[in-house]
Amino acid sequence: MKLKTLRAIFATLATQISSNGLVVDGDVRIHPVLSFLDSILRGIGQVMLQNNSFAGLIFLIGIFFNSILFGWAVVLGTAASTATALLLGVNRSHVRAGLFGFNGALVAIALLYFLEPNILTWIYVVLAAACTTIILAAVLNLLAIWKVPALTAPFVFTTLFFVMACARFGRLHSTGVLPTAGLPKAATVEGIVTFSTITEGLFNGIAQIFFQSNAISGAIFAIGLLISSRKACCAGLLGSFTGLLVAWAMGAAEPAIRSGAFGFNSALTAIALGSVFFVLDTVSATYALLAVIITAVMFAAISAALEPLGMPALTSPFVLVVWLFVLASPLFPRLRVSIL
Amino acid sequence: MKLKTLRAIFATLATQISSNGLVVDGDVRIHPVLSFLDSILRGIGQVMLQNNSFAGLIFLIGIFFNSILFGWAVVLGTAASTATALLLGVNRSHVRAGLFGFNGALVAIALLYFLEPNILTWIYVVLAAACTTIILAAVLNLLAIWKVPALTAPFVFTTLFFVMACARFGRLHSTGVLPTAGLPKAATVEGIVTFSTITEGLFNGIAQIFFQSNAISGAIFAIGLLISSRKACCAGLLGSFTGLLVAWAMGAAEPAIRSGAFGFNSALTAIALGSVFFVLDTVSATYALLAVIITAVMFAAISAALEPLGMPALTSPFVLVVWLFVLASPLFPRLRVSIL
Amino acid sequence: MKLKTLRAIFATLATQISSNGLVVDGDVRIHPVLSFLDSILRGIGQVMLQNNSFAGLIFLIGIFFNSILFGWAVVLGTAASTATALLLGVNRSHVRAGLFGFNGALVAIALLYFLEPNILTWIYVVLAAACTTIILAAVLNLLAIWKVPALTAPFVFTTLFFVMACARFGRLHSTGVLPTAGLPKAATVEGIVTFSTITEGLFNGIAQIFFQSNAISGAIFAIGLLISSRKACCAGLLGSFTGLLVAWAMGAAEPAIRSGAFGFNSALTAIALGSVFFVLDTVSATYALLAVIITAVMFAAISAALEPLGMPALTSPFVLVVWLFVLASPLFPRLRVSIL
Repeated sequence: MKLKTLRAIFATLATQISSNGLVVDGDVRIHPVLSFLDSILRGIGQVMLQNNSFAGLIFLIGIFFNSILFGWAVVLGTAASTATALLLGVNRSHVRAGLFGFNGALVAIALLYFLEPNILTWIYVVLAAACTTIILAAVLNLLAIWKVPALTAPFVFTTLFFVMACARFGRLHSTGVLPTAGLPKAATVEGIVTFSTITEGLFNGIAQIFFQSNAISGAIFAIGLLISSRKACCAGLLGSFTGLLVAWAMGAAEPAIRSGAFGFNSALTAIALGSVFFVLDTVSATYALLAVIITAVMFAAISAALEPLGMPALTSPFVLVVWLFVLASPLFPRLRVSIL
Repeated sequence: MKLKTLRAIFATLATQISSNGLVVDGDVRIHPVLSFLDSILRGIGQVMLQNNSFAGLIFLIGIFFNSILFGWAVVLGTAASTATALLLGVNRSHVRAGLFGFNGALVAIALLYFLEPNILTWIYVVLAAACTTIILAAVLNLLAIWKVPALTAPFVFTTLFFVMACARFGRLHSTGVLPTAGLPKAATVEGIVTFSTITEGLFNGIAQIFFQSNAISGAIFAIGLLISSRKACCAGLLGSFTGLLVAWAMGAAEPAIRSGAFGFNSALTAIALGSVFFVLDTVSATYALLAVIITAVMFAAISAALEPLGMPALTSPFVLVVWLFVLASPLFPRLRVSIL
Repeated sequence: MKLKTLRAIFATLATQISSNGLVVDGDVRIHPVLSFLDSILRGIGQVMLQNNSFAGLIFLIGIFFNSILFGWAVVLGTAASTATALLLGVNRSHVRAGLFGFNGALVAIALLYFLEPNILTWIYVVLAAACTTIILAAVLNLLAIWKVPALTAPFVFTTLFFVMACARFGRLHSTGVLPTAGLPKAATVEGIVTFSTITEGLFNGIAQIFFQSNAISGAIFAIGLLISSRKACCAGLLGSFTGLLVAWAMGAAEPAIRSGAFGFNSALTAIALGSVFFVLDTVSATYALLAVIITAVMFAAISAALEPLGMPALTSPFVLVVWLFVLASPLFPRLRVSIL
């Protein structure tokens, strides 16, 4: 990076800090490198539906706090999927908003979470991140008719396919955290839920959105959300908490509750339906609550359904439930849709 | 319920019995409670595509005849899904026609068929019934473009997800009738098909639409169909019979044939394609026959495909085949679509 | 066949050989039988997206060269699905272009590849071929909104359902080539890739499109492609080669690479995206290359995902990847779509 570039970056940083990003697109003097970096941070922010580079930066700090490997993975993945979008000539305002970054971010962490890192794995990550850009464009085109958002569907599809493929590829090895393939069995109540289960579970539910099993990372993410939107932060925490309560009431295993497994999808559903897609009032809050509860049930169902493949549910419950609740909304005139 | 309410009910009952329901919507003087009860009965009727509260009443009698538990379940489920629709402000004429009831009816029986009843199960039933209303609205919006009906898809999705979730929920226990998860194996011809296999199988095929393994309940359901539509009754019986014949010819196991397992989806396909969606003539009758045969094959396929999850096929073969045959119909100019 | 018919055939053959078919539709004097035969050959050609009866004829020769059973199966299947379309009154120009033939062709070979032939199997083949016509019409209607082609989706669906159903049908027996149901396991690098692996794998990758494990049949198919379109022939061979290279790099088992398993889907993706749907330039060639690589990964993933059902991936990776890449294309203004 040349001196001129660096100077441009600092000049811009000093003068252009705006309410929702380091750099605002209307600005004529933005250096392309800075614009790209800002797009990456917004991409990381979009993982929790925040078009805000400060939120993205804090999320990135939260990830690096827990794991340097995942920190670099998320930077590489976001950069690769964003660059693919730029090379294919996607509408620049979409790229600038980070829309072509968040699926790349997640797929990169996921692949390094489930596969041992080697050179082939890193190439695989770049390929998968590029793939999320194609799938996102396909899903956007597919769902445009119903005005339904793509959410993290490209991440879910790409991760499931790329991890599943390793069962045929002898040079890619899964890590210990990938579930072993097995047939689903009846559950029994395991362990006792204590106060620490609930506090850890609450923040782990936020942390798991980025595959981080670390309640402090979760708390940092919550701060990132707070900077971007108080409503989103409240929704996220309430969502994680509700998911946890549903799991507890139904008799889910204590270690799963503590790990935030039942929280991260519910947190995302709560952010999406409680703070983004609908005008918040009593009807939409009840609607969002129903969705959050069903998300926890859906997580249990999908994670059991994927057991014969030894695959994780990822954020598919969130995607499915938000799709259904947004698709259904035009038939419910009492719900007011946000003009986003 | 106040005396005034009761008086209104009897007054209305006495004067307003119409050809297809206890209460007709245009009527100004209908009491809301009566209107709600009539919507519930129509909802039960809609399980076999009949917007007719008399048919619904007779179906309910057929269920209570076999099991009081299932009788109450169907009332609760239909009421819960219908009430959810009313609370969310759904178009009243759709609610009045029972469209927001039949998926709730089925999901309630299904959950009590596959799960041991306890307080949590009943709460779960209400939650699932409410969920069918959201999914129905979503499917209606999704399929409106192609003018394809939603059928029992919301019931199938909700039941599969809610039963599957029990593999993670220690406080919900499955009953003995839920299949055990296993890997599909090659079949051999089992048992000998006799005259009693065929007669029992024929009526069980109608009974199984409501999860009742009772040929007399099946006969009562057939009477309900007959009251609503002679064409629907013939189609249903012929459909059940054809499904049974296909299974027999292909060498399916005798107990499965006797139980009506190969009949209920074929019966529903026959009612839908033979008496509802197309004008009946030689071309559409042949088309419906092909669909009924393929439904029996699809039932075999889907029930085997769900074996690794230990899940039943429910009415998914019916939904899938009718969707395909209705979606395909605009390309076949020889078929005349009913104006429904 | 009457003498008049035969004379008409020879007369037409002598005078009407055109650049892409034995018979051109505009011609007034074409005998219906000849027109039907030409439609069948075009249907066989359409398996590799070639509306060309010469290509179809050479493909048929390639199949008969390897197996007389499969040769007759492909003729029967194509005839049955084409005849179903004619009986249902489908737009004649679509039928004439072989669009209602190629799925029937493939489903017939597939069923005889996976099931022991007996009388019931042959009836089953005709039923399945008729079923592909309905599913094709449904898929055409479904995807028309996005201008996405149906490809071999009807073949994939029908074959999976009809083979899966045999787990319930005691009179249909699977052959030894159907995979046994099992749980996916981690792969290890097996065998050493030699020069003969690559040459055999390259042509087997073309041969496997028609389920033929015979490199010479593959070479004959390549000649058929060459006659129809040089671009398609190059794309097909490059696609098969790229799929093979990806599998080799990732450490797939040598026997699978040699058999062409990783080639046939990539070959089809290359033909579709490299020679049919986009104007060939640097951007679209790169786009097609990315798709071809992802197709090989997708094949690995889907074939592992279907292991618990003991089902083969067939051409589902090709269908899925081409759907995604065509659906995504409107968002990438640098890609120019072919006017087809």
